[in-house]
Amino acid sequence: MSDPRPIGVFDSGVGGLTVLREIIRRLPAESTIYVGDNARAPYGTRSDDEVRRFSAQALDALADRDVKAIVVACNTSTAVALRDLRARYALPVLGVVRPGAVTAALSTRNRRVGVIATPATVRSHAYFNAIKDENPAVEVYEHATPSLVPMVEAGRLAGPDVQQAVSDELAPLLGTRDAAGEFVFPLPASARIDTLLLGCTHYPLLQPVIASVVGDRVAIVDSATATASALAELLAVNALEAPGTTRGTAADPGRTGHDAPDEQDAEAVHVQHTTGDVARFRSIADRMFGTAFPDVTAIELEEEAA
Amino acid sequence: MSDPRPIGVFDSGVGGLTVLREIIRRLPAESTIYVGDNARAPYGTRSDDEVRRFSAQALDALADRDVKAIVVACNTSTAVALRDLRARYALPVLGVVRPGAVTAALSTRNRRVGVIATPATVRSHAYFNAIKDENPAVEVYEHATPSLVPMVEAGRLAGPDVQQAVSDELAPLLGTRDAAGEFVFPLPASARIDTLLLGCTHYPLLQPVIASVVGDRVAIVDSATATASALAELLAVNALEAPGTTRGTAADPGRTGHDAPDEQDAEAVHVQHTTGDVARFRSIADRMFGTAFPDVTAIELEEEAA
Repeated sequence: MSDPRPIGVFDSGVGGLTVLREIIRRLPAESTIYVGDNARAPYGTRSDDEVRRFSAQALDALADRDVKAIVVACNTSTAVALRDLRARYALPVLGVVRPGAVTAALSTRNRRVGVIATPATVRSHAYFNAIKDENPAVEVYEHATPSLVPMVEAGRLAGPDVQQAVSDELAPLLGTRDAAGEFVFPLPASARIDTLLLGCTHYPLLQPVIASVVGDRVAIVDSATATASALAELLAVNALEAPGTTRGTAADPGRTGHDAPDEQDAEAVHVQHTTGDVARFRSIADRMFGTAFPDVTAIELEEEAA
Repeated sequence: MSDPRPIGVFDSGVGGLTVLREIIRRLPAESTIYVGDNARAPYGTRSDDEVRRFSAQALDALADRDVKAIVVACNTSTAVALRDLRARYALPVLGVVRPGAVTAALSTRNRRVGVIATPATVRSHAYFNAIKDENPAVEVYEHATPSLVPMVEAGRLAGPDVQQAVSDELAPLLGTRDAAGEFVFPLPASARIDTLLLGCTHYPLLQPVIASVVGDRVAIVDSATATASALAELLAVNALEAPGTTRGTAADPGRTGHDAPDEQDAEAVHVQHTTGDVARFRSIADRMFGTAFPDVTAIELEEEAA
């Protein structure tokens, strides 16, 4: 059994493209439809009611396009609206918070996990709650890193100034820095985090810089990778995989590899829609990802039927 | 939206009870029906065709009892029959291999994962393939530990002789032991596993002993916990959670805790069926779990309709 229908991916803006990128990398046989509600982004400053309403409009648009599953690749929408959205559709709806949180909770050895996210996500405590739900014994240190999203959207992903900005933002989580600018760890080992969860969809683009700042002793878990992995399992479990899928079937001992990428790419179709300015979406996406997402078109979201 | 129907759990024998235990612990509002095909266990020595046929019969029995999702808590059946079983039912069917494999792949820091399992599971390379599917860069060291299942079923879960037996079985994965019986690590740190995956449903009962043998430097991932966690997410994503569920909804910032266990336990019903001798099933289960699973009754599995 297989299902060739596309996967819907929704974000308030461009950050969800990191999730989309992981989905395409992991599940090359799957087609995707992305909706970015850039005209009304960011959602972090919207009321809960607005977030619920806007999210439902975007998911209505995806459901109208006959998607087989939906990924809510927006932390704010996941934190505020996921429960309502799941009740609204007879489709599997995957959020972006729990997969990363579960991975972090299962990955930590010393039960100390740091979470970096936008101020709105930190205020929602969505990651804190999801990690505690998985394992109440894990200590969770949430920390807002507001300067990172604008930096990523400006295409500043590497270099000494980026390194410095990331160091500054992470310092409270990691320890302090000495006069030479090196991190020192006055904290006893037992008080240090050993796992850092990237709780914002923009942050995977800074992963190399973040990794060099936190060093080998801290494992980095990103929600984009964890969500793509959870989606792979979700499709397999619900018998929704696209024809030609070999991923996610490794438990079948007769199948060890992947189809040739050419063979799969020929079948998969990827389109991105934005409620905002197409040229602007494209230029931000180009700065962030190079030319990975060329097929951007406009979309209007309709008010949901009452 | 919620769904009060039970979750079906299938194993060839009693090992799947560790998965059942984790499901009950994690999802206290959910009812469960367990089928153990003890009359024809172990499946490890059966042909692939037999494993597929027996598994389909057991899942037919669960589907007839109107379960909302099925967990195949049997490594052999997952490795051999999962694909066919998923095609057979319009129900989510979760295997026991991939959740543990994904967790191990995401949890390792040095990309070296050890897997212990029965000889049949090791021969299937199900965990090897599933880990490689998640991350091809992870080195996977599979190792059969045949003496552990009989030990667990005899209720030998702790004590010096158990410690010794586990040490002996794990030695090839960990290094060698010196004259005093202490493990020494002639391997350079870069060649040591930092994550050990328990690839047999019996092994979580030996977790304390295994943890003391492998030491702090090796994280232990067990398939039972990982599968229960994946099931929680699966139910949430598919809007199949039982009424009263608070687990798996932590992304909703207004909900932080769990219902009182008493309140939930009152609603949930758990029954276990065996194709084998009821008294024998009960006595093995008692040795392994104390009196955790008292409601065992006989079941006959019918040949599937051709």
